[in-house]
Amino acid sequence: MLLHTIEEVRAEVKKWRKEGLTVGIVPTMGALHAGHLSLIKKAKQTCDKVVVSDFVNPIQFGPSEDFDKYPRTLDEDVKLCNSEGVDIVFAPSADEMYGEGQRLSNDTLTYVCPPFFYVNTLCGKSRTGHFDGVCTVVLKLFNIVQPDYGFFGQKDAQQVIIIKKMVKDLNVPITIVQCPIVREESGLALSSRNKYLSEEGKKDALVLSKILNNLKTCYSKGIKDVNALKETAYSFLNEKHDLEYLEIVDKDTLEDKKQADDNSIALIACRVEGVRLIDNIYLKEEV
Amino acid sequence: MLLHTIEEVRAEVKKWRKEGLTVGIVPTMGALHAGHLSLIKKAKQTCDKVVVSDFVNPIQFGPSEDFDKYPRTLDEDVKLCNSEGVDIVFAPSADEMYGEGQRLSNDTLTYVCPPFFYVNTLCGKSRTGHFDGVCTVVLKLFNIVQPDYGFFGQKDAQQVIIIKKMVKDLNVPITIVQCPIVREESGLALSSRNKYLSEEGKKDALVLSKILNNLKTCYSKGIKDVNALKETAYSFLNEKHDLEYLEIVDKDTLEDKKQADDNSIALIACRVEGVRLIDNIYLKEEV
Repeated sequence: MLLHTIEEVRAEVKKWRKEGLTVGIVPTMGALHAGHLSLIKKAKQTCDKVVVSDFVNPIQFGPSEDFDKYPRTLDEDVKLCNSEGVDIVFAPSADEMYGEGQRLSNDTLTYVCPPFFYVNTLCGKSRTGHFDGVCTVVLKLFNIVQPDYGFFGQKDAQQVIIIKKMVKDLNVPITIVQCPIVREESGLALSSRNKYLSEEGKKDALVLSKILNNLKTCYSKGIKDVNALKETAYSFLNEKHDLEYLEIVDKDTLEDKKQADDNSIALIACRVEGVRLIDNIYLKEEV
Repeated sequence: MLLHTIEEVRAEVKKWRKEGLTVGIVPTMGALHAGHLSLIKKAKQTCDKVVVSDFVNPIQFGPSEDFDKYPRTLDEDVKLCNSEGVDIVFAPSADEMYGEGQRLSNDTLTYVCPPFFYVNTLCGKSRTGHFDGVCTVVLKLFNIVQPDYGFFGQKDAQQVIIIKKMVKDLNVPITIVQCPIVREESGLALSSRNKYLSEEGKKDALVLSKILNNLKTCYSKGIKDVNALKETAYSFLNEKHDLEYLEIVDKDTLEDKKQADDNSIALIACRVEGVRLIDNIYLKEEV
């Protein structure tokens, strides 16, 4: 069922609640791919009812970012959701989410602001205000749907860490389920932004997963020094790659480390053909 | 019932929910007086079950403010609540609310930040971060208790306007009920901070309500110009009064006005004996 208003979603969820059913939400910005579908499948396994939100959230894009260009494929998204047995696709307008004609600014709107130490690193460094926008819309969606479970991909590792922190800090009554990264056979992590890449660009983009896999191998062979580990990456890079960051940090707190350990995660952001791509890997996979 | 942990409160509320009962919350910092009791009475009239939170919230006090000195009277508060038929008094420790030993800072904690236009005026001007701290703890309490109704006093007018805005902006599933100011016979608005005043100081403090009542009279006689209205106040003040602000603004948006109208509210903050007191009045009382 495709719904566009908060009121409709709440009315539907209310019926489910009366029947004692559990509810899961998969927040997305649409342009659904197999990564999203893995979240939806997990949600279907976990909950009686599943809501997928499909909303390109303006307040998490910076002024020079790709909000206008971001792929919008609602008709296809709805078909995919229907074939997965999704109960509600919630696709609100920006007016529905933020109020008609509302100026989208922290002058005029209440924001949820994650901790500076979690934001002022990795993607947050180059994307000022991004995670404020993410937390704000995610909390709004949680409050609209009031689900038992929320499903997020490890692909956006910093995002899921920040959302878990928000849930803990604000006592949000929800369980966050984190799902593994889905990759093409080539190793490329699925992303809606891969649509921007040429065939050539997709090949160049493999550098992200190659660097991360190599880091993991080096760690398993006993290299623990973070600087030494990072050094191993540079031979993979050429003039096609505009590296934004490569970091090895604590997988729960994002704290910098000098020595990697079994709680470490390696994260990379790199532009290829002007497209900003991210990827990450646990140095020791969780069993 | 006096409870100290989030888990206990949630367990109790869950039972009520299973019985289909409605729940109200009255968030307080304790030191209960007849103003709080009017909120509690209203909550009892409106809801099947009532939770009063009793927590002096450290993150809404500035470094030079009266956090340590703020009156704490839990035993008396509990007696008063029992006599009003309150179902739960929730009195958590700071560790329970923010995590054991957690540094209380926006470096390390997720905050709810109300809009700059609502904060950078009136009390917010002199109390940096105050309303971030208020919104954060109030949203936490809402998420812990998940009440249908929240009860707030008009005494803290800017606070209740900001909380209503938060509820709207973040789609918090709760109805906010605003209750009128309770005054001593003298006209002095009740406040936990009145305990800091000497008998002499309480007399000097009457200047706040006198100025506001006079403003309302002037408005009813046809004076609409805000500057002219504010001028009427100054003759009431003497060297015992350290006026922080006197403003006439829109009662919903806090926007400045040049001409007062029936949606205007007059607000005053003034120190007497070093104690910061606030009061406010609608220029046209709502019927």
